[in-house]
Amino acid sequence: MALIVHKYGGTSMGSTERIRNVARRVAKWHDAGNQIVVVPSAMSGETNRLIGLAKEIMPQPDPRELDMLASTGEQVSVALLSMALQALGKQAVSYAGWQVAIKTDSAFTKARIQSIDDAKVRKDLEAGKIVIITGFQGVDNDGNITTLGRGGSDTSAVAVAAALKAQECLIYTDVDGVYTTDPRVVSDARRLDKVTFEEMLEMASLGSKVLQIRSVEFAGNYRMPTRVLSSLTDPMIPLEEEAKSGTLISFEEDTNMEQATITGIAFSRDEAKITVLGVPDKPGIAYQILGPVADANIEVDMIIQNQSVEGKTDFSFTVPRGDYARTMDVLEKSVKGHITPTSIVGDTKVSKVSVVGVGMRSHVGIASQMFRTLAEEGINIQLISTSEIKISVLIDEKYMELAVRALHKAFDLEKAN
Amino acid sequence: MALIVHKYGGTSMGSTERIRNVARRVAKWHDAGNQIVVVPSAMSGETNRLIGLAKEIMPQPDPRELDMLASTGEQVSVALLSMALQALGKQAVSYAGWQVAIKTDSAFTKARIQSIDDAKVRKDLEAGKIVIITGFQGVDNDGNITTLGRGGSDTSAVAVAAALKAQECLIYTDVDGVYTTDPRVVSDARRLDKVTFEEMLEMASLGSKVLQIRSVEFAGNYRMPTRVLSSLTDPMIPLEEEAKSGTLISFEEDTNMEQATITGIAFSRDEAKITVLGVPDKPGIAYQILGPVADANIEVDMIIQNQSVEGKTDFSFTVPRGDYARTMDVLEKSVKGHITPTSIVGDTKVSKVSVVGVGMRSHVGIASQMFRTLAEEGINIQLISTSEIKISVLIDEKYMELAVRALHKAFDLEKAN
Repeated sequence: MALIVHKYGGTSMGSTERIRNVARRVAKWHDAGNQIVVVPSAMSGETNRLIGLAKEIMPQPDPRELDMLASTGEQVSVALLSMALQALGKQAVSYAGWQVAIKTDSAFTKARIQSIDDAKVRKDLEAGKIVIITGFQGVDNDGNITTLGRGGSDTSAVAVAAALKAQECLIYTDVDGVYTTDPRVVSDARRLDKVTFEEMLEMASLGSKVLQIRSVEFAGNYRMPTRVLSSLTDPMIPLEEEAKSGTLISFEEDTNMEQATITGIAFSRDEAKITVLGVPDKPGIAYQILGPVADANIEVDMIIQNQSVEGKTDFSFTVPRGDYARTMDVLEKSVKGHITPTSIVGDTKVSKVSVVGVGMRSHVGIASQMFRTLAEEGINIQLISTSEIKISVLIDEKYMELAVRALHKAFDLEKAN
Repeated sequence: MALIVHKYGGTSMGSTERIRNVARRVAKWHDAGNQIVVVPSAMSGETNRLIGLAKEIMPQPDPRELDMLASTGEQVSVALLSMALQALGKQAVSYAGWQVAIKTDSAFTKARIQSIDDAKVRKDLEAGKIVIITGFQGVDNDGNITTLGRGGSDTSAVAVAAALKAQECLIYTDVDGVYTTDPRVVSDARRLDKVTFEEMLEMASLGSKVLQIRSVEFAGNYRMPTRVLSSLTDPMIPLEEEAKSGTLISFEEDTNMEQATITGIAFSRDEAKITVLGVPDKPGIAYQILGPVADANIEVDMIIQNQSVEGKTDFSFTVPRGDYARTMDVLEKSVKGHITPTSIVGDTKVSKVSVVGVGMRSHVGIASQMFRTLAEEGINIQLISTSEIKISVLIDEKYMELAVRALHKAFDLEKAN
């Protein structure tokens, strides 16, 4: 008997008819002798509907109240799924995040999970019940409802799986796995049977959108095998077939590193670039610039500092485009006066394209191949950033699709290795 | 500085525009130096929408899961109202029932409030915040969300007012007070400036539908002055005028009892009558019949037992029409075999009409006046039940409006006393 966590997205939970299908699939796994915990998202459109109501009231609603509001979407889902399982003759019980309890910090609208108390859930599972827990939300130490931000249900699912030491966390979604790049951009993108945690982390963080980045971090920290698979198949397909479908994020040592060079091309459209020009090149500068940005809970992605010239340097970084105006406000208040930069400039029409693969380090030609391909398409590179397993470039957003297609082809990703 | 509790119904909370109006009204009361707690209902239609989703899943959803589902409606309301107050520059904070905490028993879908911890709310009020608390719901000792049943937000509001020892509880609704009878049935029904708690209890329990019966019980138990007033007035009308509008449920000794004879004509359309025929007339019979009905959480209203004949008697009672089938099931299982009645008969096409007034006891002619009026209209009386301040009769439902109109006229209720 295995303990398995299922996560279903908003599309899968989009109507009572679809919720009944989710229930049939879950019941199939339970019938096979597994203990099952389900973490569903809100019904598709519901979170947007709720946030729309809030925006009708005021453009910048208070984050605590926004979480109070938005968290109701998942609560509706868990109750309906519990009923649907009961309608199939299963024992089921639903919990909101605070009931489990999923404890988080108090960063409303982007809280982070700190702990999960598994006692209640274990007791229910041992009594033969299917347990359904709201994704996306938790409770802080003062008893306030928090949410984890968009896509947070993935994180909840993996965190619950880790807390319960589940055998596998299955993320059911409307794509059937992780691809070498987005099939909407490159039509012959290929599904990967398996990716390493590190590759998935880069793919997710760079905007592949299959899994939320924090869920991958959780999977990595707890070495929780996590599978991305389709919720669009017939719920009654044989369990053995379903259990092997999709893409497994694996923690096994890759025995084939020499062959697997490039895994995929990731991209992120909605980036914004900020450059602080002419700052003194001395210790603490990076912290003085980014500290206040981090304190404002803005996620910084690429960070580039060039060689200084005459004791001055330029400091660039990227943030999600939606946080651009707020970041500029923060810098205006915090940086000016302290470090007297020449000026602060920004660009909101930039996108990031990345080449990802664990085998990259041992193949020195990858970077030059990437830069040559972009040059041949006449695409100017604005920033470059590299890690052990990826090379990212920031380019004009209008060339993003072109860059992704050209790179996918240049690295032969349409062919199985 | 007074502490005032406001309660707003679903119609008042029916759109973000209306929620903004509620916020303006609440802010006006706060501006005048009062501490304000607001208990809003779910947006109109929302509870029905949620229960509709549940019924799509299964006809008889599990009560625990139904409460998990239905309680989200009020959570949406409190968050939106808090935002609307913040948009007006007020400090506001919303709480779900479990956060306060409003502790209830575990009778899902019809839970009863056991205690309210006022510490958190007092602290917020003292800090100048307006506190918004979900109506309709609480949490049981095991941390499950419970709801109080339809109309439960009134009860929550009065219970919160009592726990906080508020000066007054204002129930804003889509009628402008308590009338001598339903103005939709009798066009010249008259609004009462003041009713006693006992009269209101009879008016509410008999179906006047202005306030939920349990909220009146709470008001009575805690002697909480409670005012029913209109939410449809301009939110910015002078506070002095608003504070005196509507109908006050008062706990002052009535100094004018000789004059105030009949306060109003209450009625309840959706009744069902059950008669257990030919039961032995011995101690314990009433309990043997009604005990199992009460255990099934069915509310029994009128109870009539006639003089026995040859050691046998007939036992009649009424229940809400929606509980009729379930009541018959319960009786079928519990009564037969134990007390061997001749038969159990029922009628679901009955309504109750009551004449209510604290001055009734000192005016012996009221009953005969009532019975004569009904006789003159050719209306047969099926059951009669009396209390200190009311006389109720059960009649064929098709004569209900006729009876109410005739009695309203017979007692001159269109004229101010």
